[in-house]
Amino acid sequence: MIHTGRGREAFTLSQTSLNPVSQGSFNFLFKLPKYISLQESLLSSASGFKNYRGILNWCVVMLVLSNARLFLENLLRYGILVDPIQVVSLFLKDPYSWPAACLVIVSNVFILVALYTERKLAMGTFSEKLGLLIHIINLTVILCFPMLTVLMVPSVTPVGGAFALGSYTILFLKLYSYKDVNRWCRERLQVKARGLSRSLSCPSPPSADGAVHVSYPGNLAFKNLYYFVSAPTLCYELNFPRSQSVRMGFLLRRLFEMVGENLFLFRSHILVVFSVVPQWMVPIIQSSMKPLQDMDYSRMIERLLRLAVPNHFLWLIFFYWFFHSSMNFVAELLRFGDREFYRDWWNSESVTYFWQNWNIPVHKWCIRHFYKPLLRKGASKLLSQSAVFFASAFFHEYLVSVPLRMFRLWAFMGMMAQLPLAWFVGRFLRGNYGNAAVWLSLIIGQPIAVLMYVHDYYVINHLEEAADPGAL
Amino acid sequence: MIHTGRGREAFTLSQTSLNPVSQGSFNFLFKLPKYISLQESLLSSASGFKNYRGILNWCVVMLVLSNARLFLENLLRYGILVDPIQVVSLFLKDPYSWPAACLVIVSNVFILVALYTERKLAMGTFSEKLGLLIHIINLTVILCFPMLTVLMVPSVTPVGGAFALGSYTILFLKLYSYKDVNRWCRERLQVKARGLSRSLSCPSPPSADGAVHVSYPGNLAFKNLYYFVSAPTLCYELNFPRSQSVRMGFLLRRLFEMVGENLFLFRSHILVVFSVVPQWMVPIIQSSMKPLQDMDYSRMIERLLRLAVPNHFLWLIFFYWFFHSSMNFVAELLRFGDREFYRDWWNSESVTYFWQNWNIPVHKWCIRHFYKPLLRKGASKLLSQSAVFFASAFFHEYLVSVPLRMFRLWAFMGMMAQLPLAWFVGRFLRGNYGNAAVWLSLIIGQPIAVLMYVHDYYVINHLEEAADPGAL
Repeated sequence: MIHTGRGREAFTLSQTSLNPVSQGSFNFLFKLPKYISLQESLLSSASGFKNYRGILNWCVVMLVLSNARLFLENLLRYGILVDPIQVVSLFLKDPYSWPAACLVIVSNVFILVALYTERKLAMGTFSEKLGLLIHIINLTVILCFPMLTVLMVPSVTPVGGAFALGSYTILFLKLYSYKDVNRWCRERLQVKARGLSRSLSCPSPPSADGAVHVSYPGNLAFKNLYYFVSAPTLCYELNFPRSQSVRMGFLLRRLFEMVGENLFLFRSHILVVFSVVPQWMVPIIQSSMKPLQDMDYSRMIERLLRLAVPNHFLWLIFFYWFFHSSMNFVAELLRFGDREFYRDWWNSESVTYFWQNWNIPVHKWCIRHFYKPLLRKGASKLLSQSAVFFASAFFHEYLVSVPLRMFRLWAFMGMMAQLPLAWFVGRFLRGNYGNAAVWLSLIIGQPIAVLMYVHDYYVINHLEEAADPGAL
Repeated sequence: MIHTGRGREAFTLSQTSLNPVSQGSFNFLFKLPKYISLQESLLSSASGFKNYRGILNWCVVMLVLSNARLFLENLLRYGILVDPIQVVSLFLKDPYSWPAACLVIVSNVFILVALYTERKLAMGTFSEKLGLLIHIINLTVILCFPMLTVLMVPSVTPVGGAFALGSYTILFLKLYSYKDVNRWCRERLQVKARGLSRSLSCPSPPSADGAVHVSYPGNLAFKNLYYFVSAPTLCYELNFPRSQSVRMGFLLRRLFEMVGENLFLFRSHILVVFSVVPQWMVPIIQSSMKPLQDMDYSRMIERLLRLAVPNHFLWLIFFYWFFHSSMNFVAELLRFGDREFYRDWWNSESVTYFWQNWNIPVHKWCIRHFYKPLLRKGASKLLSQSAVFFASAFFHEYLVSVPLRMFRLWAFMGMMAQLPLAWFVGRFLRGNYGNAAVWLSLIIGQPIAVLMYVHDYYVINHLEEAADPGAL
């Protein structure tokens, strides 16, 4: 089970002479040698050892291997399953009507309105009040227009609708930040003008990479705004930190990951729609139509657990695809320097820590443009926190209910359930137990909400089939 | 998706005054704020971030959940499967004959022979040569006697045989270390006596925990030797580091883990014997009886991958059960202080690192009692390393072939295959890629060897059934 002699630790023995009879060569027997000492095993929490990078690689290897096996098995049994037409049909019902893509193209109008308003504000043509009004109207339309389109146009698929609404939500947050930062710049200029003590131009920060740094009115350009709109961040800055150059190897690795993960996500979607729902959901739905006392709880828990693990894997892959591969790919392409898209939420020992660290762009936006301004306006900490939480729950519901065209508040309630959960975990669990509780809430909590939506969606859209036992 | 305001990082914004018009409150807009900076994502290898303790907890949660699901499913489908009689039948064929247990009891004789010889040597009654001869005979018998017993007594089951041979192998390594260390002590005393410059008694090291420390002839006592035999180490020391007290909470946690993992391992063994072998192995064995050109390679690879993942999980659970739970349990019970039973082999970036770090007791023994003595006798480094490697391959084969009563050299060849693998990984792969390669060799390499043995064992013991298609 071992070991050439290239041990990385200096064993005391190696310091002794090779002649066994020379004086002093047996000292190591009578003092405790360096390699025997009072110490804990690495896996004991008392050891404080935390380097488990290898476990992450293990997860990736296992994931690739299990999928290679499933792929091979599917291939042997059914031939190639992923049909390009099926993939396209996720986004399009009618190949001659591209509502989601049209929506995304139309969004440019709102970007231009925001830029035009800011330019007029900078020139003083618009008063601050008029500018704010136009911005508010613009931002309201950004939220309402795609919602109404998705609800009214029947050819929008749920995936296409979610994509369009997601894009518009991101744009909403970005333009809100754009408006705020530009207003702050103007206020600063006014302060300076009143003080008359310094030059009127905003000072440029020292340029780290030799790029030209812009100051306030100079930033109101197409290029600057479109860079912000494309960049993987929600918080506007006049000058973003930039990386030195585009690393082609890094770019290609992220591209390779994105393609692989996309294939995986598509395949999983098709598996869910054509296999999991008919085989697993229909019996659950049928049994849930019976009166409550007839329900077989141990069977329902078994079904829930059976769905929880694949659902969790999908979420993890989605996280990696979106927050690591895609965002890093875009950032590398744009030489966008700040790659902190997530922190180490996998070590979360409390629910709060998880929510603060898994989605850094949104977290930063909320702190800068929602929580801190509320505090400055005199709101209490608790009120501000609750407001952030409600806004977040609202957007969750918005992004799920509208594309599915049903208003059930499961996502909203899922977010609200985090509050007692956070209290419970913070109150009773610490360290690795707290971490395990956070994982458990992720693994079990999500599929409950997902099951609710799938259940209701299926009941609404396929009630006839579900009621007909021949369809099973 | 977010975030109360209890962000752990000090955002620059929070340092500004709450009055938006006061001079200087917008500084954060013009210098790069602390929370926007050139930085890599944590999952990028360039970030250098390695704290993935949470991923380990995730693995445990997932393992427990998947098994809870499987358990519930099995319970719903078949009722309780693990039958105490089946568990006992792993170790016993005939309930009135306990060959493996008898073997373990008999092993006390060899311990007493070693102690008696060392006492005579200390008193000078035996010459060094005679003592060495008796030790060599004793150690040879320790290896040969259980082997012959297992091969000759038909009522020894493979599991019982492996257990008995494992115990004897551990005893062999321990008594070898005992003999060496006592000889070194005598040599040191002679050196001192010749030098006449110091006192004749061995110096005692400073006592850390107030326990009495023994010096050379004083260590030749029953209690001292039996403590060493029971302690989770293979390298003898006159005085082991001791922990202050037995922590009951720690002890109970390890006991709880041991019981759970034992149940899991037994259940898996039963699943393998009664479900995997008939369902998966028999078709493979049948297809492997056809001429080579008829074999369906993609199907064979699919079968191999299907077995690889559960086999790997069993190995991981076995590792945790043996090296963490059991050894820590025994160590806590004996207040044995040195808990370094493994190092961070999960981060291995080369095959060498893995073999040096996954089994520390054996690794330390090999360095101290085999590799270094060979070097001191003038052997070259390469020769010594190869000798260690051959000895290790020999013991692997010994522990597998004898209990199964078939000599196939698959384990021996598996060990030897590590040499070209180590060269390949060390030569071409670095960092996370090297780590992934080590994991892959563990996940894929092991089941190949296991399949070979299972295949041959099945062909020998169940050839009639396998040849009869009605048995499927």
